[in-house]
Amino acid sequence: MNKLTRLCILGGMAASTAFVATGLQARPAREIAGAKYVFFFIGDGMSATQIQATEAYLTAKNDGDVNLAANLRKTDNILNLNRLPVHGMQTTYAYDHLITDSAAAGTALACGTKTNSGVIGMDYSKTKEFKSIAELAKESGRRVGIISSVSLDHATPASFFANTANRSGYEEVAVEAALSSFDFFGGGGWLYPNSNAYKTHYTKLSTTSVEAVLANEGYTTLNTDAAIRALKTAPRTKVVCTVPVLQSSAAMPYAVDKPAGQVSLAEMTEVAVACLTGNNSGGFFLMVEGGKVDWACHANDPVGTIGDMLDFDDAVGVAIDFYKQHPNDTLIIVTGDHETGGLTLGFSGRGYESAFEKLLGQKLSYEAFGAKVAAYKTAKAFAKPYNTAANNIDQQMKDMILADFGLSFDSLSDYRKNLLEAAYDRSMSGAALAGTTTATGWDRGYGTTETISNVDYLYYGGYDALTMEISHQISYETGLGWTSYSHTAVPIPVMAMGFDDYRFSGFYDNTDIAKSIAAAMRVNATLPIVTNP
Amino acid sequence: MNKLTRLCILGGMAASTAFVATGLQARPAREIAGAKYVFFFIGDGMSATQIQATEAYLTAKNDGDVNLAANLRKTDNILNLNRLPVHGMQTTYAYDHLITDSAAAGTALACGTKTNSGVIGMDYSKTKEFKSIAELAKESGRRVGIISSVSLDHATPASFFANTANRSGYEEVAVEAALSSFDFFGGGGWLYPNSNAYKTHYTKLSTTSVEAVLANEGYTTLNTDAAIRALKTAPRTKVVCTVPVLQSSAAMPYAVDKPAGQVSLAEMTEVAVACLTGNNSGGFFLMVEGGKVDWACHANDPVGTIGDMLDFDDAVGVAIDFYKQHPNDTLIIVTGDHETGGLTLGFSGRGYESAFEKLLGQKLSYEAFGAKVAAYKTAKAFAKPYNTAANNIDQQMKDMILADFGLSFDSLSDYRKNLLEAAYDRSMSGAALAGTTTATGWDRGYGTTETISNVDYLYYGGYDALTMEISHQISYETGLGWTSYSHTAVPIPVMAMGFDDYRFSGFYDNTDIAKSIAAAMRVNATLPIVTNP
Repeated sequence: MNKLTRLCILGGMAASTAFVATGLQARPAREIAGAKYVFFFIGDGMSATQIQATEAYLTAKNDGDVNLAANLRKTDNILNLNRLPVHGMQTTYAYDHLITDSAAAGTALACGTKTNSGVIGMDYSKTKEFKSIAELAKESGRRVGIISSVSLDHATPASFFANTANRSGYEEVAVEAALSSFDFFGGGGWLYPNSNAYKTHYTKLSTTSVEAVLANEGYTTLNTDAAIRALKTAPRTKVVCTVPVLQSSAAMPYAVDKPAGQVSLAEMTEVAVACLTGNNSGGFFLMVEGGKVDWACHANDPVGTIGDMLDFDDAVGVAIDFYKQHPNDTLIIVTGDHETGGLTLGFSGRGYESAFEKLLGQKLSYEAFGAKVAAYKTAKAFAKPYNTAANNIDQQMKDMILADFGLSFDSLSDYRKNLLEAAYDRSMSGAALAGTTTATGWDRGYGTTETISNVDYLYYGGYDALTMEISHQISYETGLGWTSYSHTAVPIPVMAMGFDDYRFSGFYDNTDIAKSIAAAMRVNATLPIVTNP
Repeated sequence: MNKLTRLCILGGMAASTAFVATGLQARPAREIAGAKYVFFFIGDGMSATQIQATEAYLTAKNDGDVNLAANLRKTDNILNLNRLPVHGMQTTYAYDHLITDSAAAGTALACGTKTNSGVIGMDYSKTKEFKSIAELAKESGRRVGIISSVSLDHATPASFFANTANRSGYEEVAVEAALSSFDFFGGGGWLYPNSNAYKTHYTKLSTTSVEAVLANEGYTTLNTDAAIRALKTAPRTKVVCTVPVLQSSAAMPYAVDKPAGQVSLAEMTEVAVACLTGNNSGGFFLMVEGGKVDWACHANDPVGTIGDMLDFDDAVGVAIDFYKQHPNDTLIIVTGDHETGGLTLGFSGRGYESAFEKLLGQKLSYEAFGAKVAAYKTAKAFAKPYNTAANNIDQQMKDMILADFGLSFDSLSDYRKNLLEAAYDRSMSGAALAGTTTATGWDRGYGTTETISNVDYLYYGGYDALTMEISHQISYETGLGWTSYSHTAVPIPVMAMGFDDYRFSGFYDNTDIAKSIAAAMRVNATLPIVTNP
């Protein structure tokens, strides 16, 4: 990757001179300089349904009956992101898929170009590299911050600083972060803290440690709550803040699993703002990703999703507070990169009824409960071969389900009990449902040349079966439906407020958002030179 | 119902005088008079997913591969409604349900007030009646037209001229249509063309015929294509145009089932425009409902849905053509009243893949195929009791499925064959699946006090089982998912163009749309006096 040879879809600052020279000298300096402070919030997997489900959950929690308009309209039940005045909608498809992945979507949002799923910061032919709006912001004198609740080398954050044909090259992405000169990284950690691949991708130093690579490029890594919080009063730049307790894949814990007192996504946003504005900065561009909304939706986990939606929305609240102090210089954009899970607010078995109070009993994420199921299985030490007929959900498991989801097994219909028993057997035995095969690849057994039956995948999506069956049942009784364990092609709303917010009204493509942000920052005067559609 | 005592949430024309008197005399007459020509398109059951699915279908039909961004972006594959420049989003909940019905949603869109599901033009207490924006338009000197592809006394059209505590009072609604003085009705017919109830609701005449009631109020009913088309060159008012061939419930046929040469929703819109503008009218308000998008989505019928979406969008095209001739005086608004079916663009069994070409083989609606299944069953004259083991899908049925849906039974996996066989037995025997019960009421067996198992409803939703199983399988292999046979609470996009279109930007409630239309027509200066919720 050679920064010097990269195409610049979004233009560069040099063009600003031409902009000024075309007779616009009389405009206020603010108009010429563009949005000084830019917040770009990306709810990974977030569409209108995730937003509406979260407001319905809040209504049930705060006011009880979710079916009363008077409750739904209460101010406390409206998300911060729904308070932004400008509204738009974006299409999300990739260059090569109606249903995008996060790499192609991230590249569209960061670089303003379509590319193939799996590709970051490059074109579909994987030969051209693109600058991102974060890099253009940095060149313009603004500081840049990148926050994600998942690992910092994951596809969405990576799209703002990396260029790679394969999103799975996490070590290469981490090295590009170190070389980015960006001012702030915060949230999760790095997928491979130690890997021999760093020797290949970073030749200035012989090390297998990403922290050593970062340190060699001037970055300080902080991973205690106290050290991270200290930045609010003693801000600095070139800092990487990773919360101390991580869940799988080096991600921040789901909001519903967060250890008490640990820095949240919202507090990380406050820390970033302090660092990006300290010592008279020239403004900033801050991207904040709610990355685990997507993961929870992949797992069809309703409260995992809603918990992280609320966490993400709290971070939006931090930006709104900042906006109130700098109303003429701040731009806030909130959107998602795609929808995940095929979430809808209606289920056949509930007809026209909704009962979001059914979700109030869920106390932890699918990941945390799945770990408890695995521990239970180990403790049980079932005789082999596993005997489906002899092993049923016992009182211990019933108690776990009641305590963690508020679901009383004995009160359920035989239909639902049987589904839970089948899932229990699937979890305890580890064997796929009889007569089925394991799904592989991007097509999951219902395709054009479909000759296998993939019921096991249809039921459980490759997740712990018992956890998935519980997640489905509490979703269904709430009146929530899911159609997929993958992303969908649903268009995604865009909300905006502040400087040049009018640019985000209307219906457009995800690539237009990067262009509009670049335009609002006045770093785009030569755009676009995109050559693919 | 007493028009004189009705509350007027949206104010009346008298207020326009005050508006002019407050120092705005210098404004152009156009500004003071408001939007002269108003088109209000309501896609019943239409959300962003129905729109995106339709564009993907067009892409597959016109250009083949739906996974190529270059194809998705082609102009021919973009719907007319997505060409409107202003975009907004609305919440749809009723006064008493997060998931609304069409009566409460219609009342919100027509009268600007929340009410209970099932109620038309009245408040939640069923004691106050409200004027609609159509009635205010009429009072202001504009002509008014009401078009629907379902019967003209159905909830959505009724909301613009009727006030009743019970949407099922179709005869009362039809009488209110006759008393409305509106200038044009077109589309489907009346649910009860003949009924003793007309004697109760219309005392001026002793008749059981809705046509006689209408005639007595000065309306001419036309029900041949030639007579309807003749209005384009010889326009008149107080006319009711019903297409000659109707499907069930006095609705226009699904677009995919339309007899060749019959007037379409778009052509009916052309006819209405001719009648509403003929002889120097003072402008118009025209509501056009795509009512069978909803019905097809209830039945989870993908091409039934898309066919009627295209039909509806063609009608929007007529409005855009009119706008081009009257760009300074025309306002076009397009939205849905709610989503139906929980449609999403992703299915677990397809992962990230989409294959909309799989829909190109569907040649008719679920209703038309269901009728063929019923005829097949009658012809077979199965021995009773029906023998599930002995009766399987035969070559005749396989040929029907192949011809009408492009689905080759013998090429399917055992899993899918078994599901089709079970559905076939369900259709031929008429017996619910073993161990299940029939769903009743608004809650469909997955509720709070759930003690029954309603698998039969979960699978087939009360529709012909074989037709539903086919609809589901072709949806799934396309990469479409459904979660319900009812409506959902998904927020709905709003598109607008023309006079005062800025009012429709942002995120707001469905009740705000009626208020914004009233404001654009300058008939709202005293709004709102809404007291609920």
